[in-house]
Amino acid sequence: MTPGLDDLLTVLRFPSVSTDPKHKPDVRANADWLVNKFRAIGLKPELHETPGHPIAIARNEHKPGRRTVMIYGHYDVQPADPLNEWKTPAFEPTIRDGRIYCRGSTDNKGQHMAHLRGIEETLAAGEELPVNLIFLIEGEEEIGSPNLKPFLEAHREELKCDLVAISDTGMVKEGVGTFTYGLRGIACMEVRLHGPSIDLHSGIFGGAVMNPNTAIARLAATLHHDDGRIAIDGFYDDVQPLQDWERKAWQGLGETNHETQHLTGAPALWGETGFSELEQRWARPTAEINGIGGGWQGAGSKTVIPREAMMKLSFRLVPHQHPDKILAQVEAHLRKHCPPGVRLEIIPGHSGMPYVMDPHSTLGQAAQRALASAFGPEHPIALIREGGSIPIVQAFKDVLGVETLLLGLALPDCQAHAPNENFPVSSFEAGVKLNKALLRELA
Amino acid sequence: MTPGLDDLLTVLRFPSVSTDPKHKPDVRANADWLVNKFRAIGLKPELHETPGHPIAIARNEHKPGRRTVMIYGHYDVQPADPLNEWKTPAFEPTIRDGRIYCRGSTDNKGQHMAHLRGIEETLAAGEELPVNLIFLIEGEEEIGSPNLKPFLEAHREELKCDLVAISDTGMVKEGVGTFTYGLRGIACMEVRLHGPSIDLHSGIFGGAVMNPNTAIARLAATLHHDDGRIAIDGFYDDVQPLQDWERKAWQGLGETNHETQHLTGAPALWGETGFSELEQRWARPTAEINGIGGGWQGAGSKTVIPREAMMKLSFRLVPHQHPDKILAQVEAHLRKHCPPGVRLEIIPGHSGMPYVMDPHSTLGQAAQRALASAFGPEHPIALIREGGSIPIVQAFKDVLGVETLLLGLALPDCQAHAPNENFPVSSFEAGVKLNKALLRELA
Repeated sequence: MTPGLDDLLTVLRFPSVSTDPKHKPDVRANADWLVNKFRAIGLKPELHETPGHPIAIARNEHKPGRRTVMIYGHYDVQPADPLNEWKTPAFEPTIRDGRIYCRGSTDNKGQHMAHLRGIEETLAAGEELPVNLIFLIEGEEEIGSPNLKPFLEAHREELKCDLVAISDTGMVKEGVGTFTYGLRGIACMEVRLHGPSIDLHSGIFGGAVMNPNTAIARLAATLHHDDGRIAIDGFYDDVQPLQDWERKAWQGLGETNHETQHLTGAPALWGETGFSELEQRWARPTAEINGIGGGWQGAGSKTVIPREAMMKLSFRLVPHQHPDKILAQVEAHLRKHCPPGVRLEIIPGHSGMPYVMDPHSTLGQAAQRALASAFGPEHPIALIREGGSIPIVQAFKDVLGVETLLLGLALPDCQAHAPNENFPVSSFEAGVKLNKALLRELA
Repeated sequence: MTPGLDDLLTVLRFPSVSTDPKHKPDVRANADWLVNKFRAIGLKPELHETPGHPIAIARNEHKPGRRTVMIYGHYDVQPADPLNEWKTPAFEPTIRDGRIYCRGSTDNKGQHMAHLRGIEETLAAGEELPVNLIFLIEGEEEIGSPNLKPFLEAHREELKCDLVAISDTGMVKEGVGTFTYGLRGIACMEVRLHGPSIDLHSGIFGGAVMNPNTAIARLAATLHHDDGRIAIDGFYDDVQPLQDWERKAWQGLGETNHETQHLTGAPALWGETGFSELEQRWARPTAEINGIGGGWQGAGSKTVIPREAMMKLSFRLVPHQHPDKILAQVEAHLRKHCPPGVRLEIIPGHSGMPYVMDPHSTLGQAAQRALASAFGPEHPIALIREGGSIPIVQAFKDVLGVETLLLGLALPDCQAHAPNENFPVSSFEAGVKLNKALLRELA
């Protein structure tokens, strides 16, 4: 067995589902295991209580004059349901065809445990780590890290570092070291349209009142032009065009439409006219209706005009859009376009800034050398952005003032958040190498 | 207590929700109760099984030379949700301020039980009913009466009659006898849009696939023009303008906007430009979205692109629109306007023809005399249409070749199909009188 894999299998058996109160002891057990492991390999462990789940931290002996590197990970996982879609039990790691199937395998236990194994091997060989290390593993990432930013603020001095490294993103394909230098931000809101004071019989009253379902649909339909461009005034004001080197780097990844269509299973890809599939997902903002609902959705028919209808909106943002400005523009748009005969209510949701760093900076180049060392010279390092949001990256920038290196080890079909989540043993092995090379390159 | 009211309270306690399989035994229990009651008051009962819920029938001894009158009602009810909006339990009849609050009280148990009580009183007084009676109460009206027409066809001879009388419509206001000479028809369908094969992370994939929620909203928004007119090609081809006497009769009902806004509680009335509120509800066709849904509708946010979204459509039709023609036009419209990147599925639902009869005919005049006898001479009888649909009225015409007299007892605020459905005790009492007068006038 791959050295260190037994420890990964052990932590995968903790059903550390942070959102579910009944798994609180399992989350705690995982944190305790980490603390014991940190101690066993020669690091100094700390377990920090929060109002939610604890934060586990490990340090080596910090020496003046060395770079201080924080490695971040999270030991909590998403719920495993629908359970009946798992081929093997969700919390019993099972290795098939070189992949470890288990909830949390790719997101994020496989990835932070590879770093842990890298550190363990360095120390076991009698070597010293070449940097001052702060290894921080939290237990609330899957519920939006509500206690991490306050924790960073409260321990600003002890957590002072030169950069953060995270392996919690993806690789473009197996064997290709991938450096993620940008993320989209997010801004959320819920929209409710209130119509009649009660659900009405659509025969008796239909024709003389605005149906909130019709109104929410008509309002939702104003968000986009037919070509996929968002129709909100000022929405694109702060969006910058891609730089030439980015466009070239992404073109170098080849044709991705086929793979994306395969991964999504959509009847056809569809997006804003004039942009490649990667640009649409990585560099263009979106307006998504994550949920829409009103009236009778059960079996059969119920001929009602419902008293209200709702939609949940989220906007993915790109540099240099700001969530507050976008939310104000959206609200103005909704107020302007709301159909007559209903009352509009807007409930603001969470938001997070987009993120971008320069991969050609000193740190970026060090990260790329580490990836090359872990994955070999066969492929050039892929320089990508990702479409998702990692709000903690912004928290590190805001509170600690540092950049984050995103050096992901997940493959596109690792099924994060879905049934049959998995992580290749080869990615674990590459992650161990990556850890050693990264600390060396950053030193 | 008003005589006969105890029986009404008893049947109201059966949660006879025909659309919900788990209430099948309750529907059956209500039918069994009716059969026993028919027998107890001296009628000859029959319980006819159907592929769905049973049809209960009662007859007196039919004698040659008398008119044969069918009285129709339905013992099934709409679902009671949302349950938390009921002030008292939905299936526990509660009398407050002269009204009986319970699902089914106005639609239709209170109304057909008044007829039953009228017959019971006549027979209990040792009198003979002046007509040959066929009292037919079905259990599938709220799901479109799928088995009634086949039943009529299979028993055409035994069900031969001279007319049908139904109390399942409304009165314009308390104390005003109301004769409904027209109804809107209906045509229903469910529309499903299928997108990705799984729910997608809206950060990772957002921008490159059509969101089924967005698609359903954009498709729904094509149904109407901004002025409320329906935008489906050919939709109005068969709609006839109102006749002069109708327009006059309706104008005689006075200004109704205020009352309708009060009843609906809508922030403002809104409908097709160029028509009065009554015309919009009684004489103009509609396109309603009774339900719309897709993605995350629970608390908080879940940033998904759902794999599908749906809407339930119903179209109210006026003479001489035909449901089949309308459904074909709707389907053509949906196929033409369906956004790219999703697969359209159309599931046809139930439908029913619009209905209109001449209130100045012999039968119409007899019905008006019966109403005058039940409600007194204070107010002239109101001649109205209603916006709802009673597809079985057309079935009676098609199969049995007879007209239907619609002599409703519901008040505008009886909340049919909604929480806190209710029926005035005074309407029950008037209904008992109406039954006696009607059979006398029709004899």
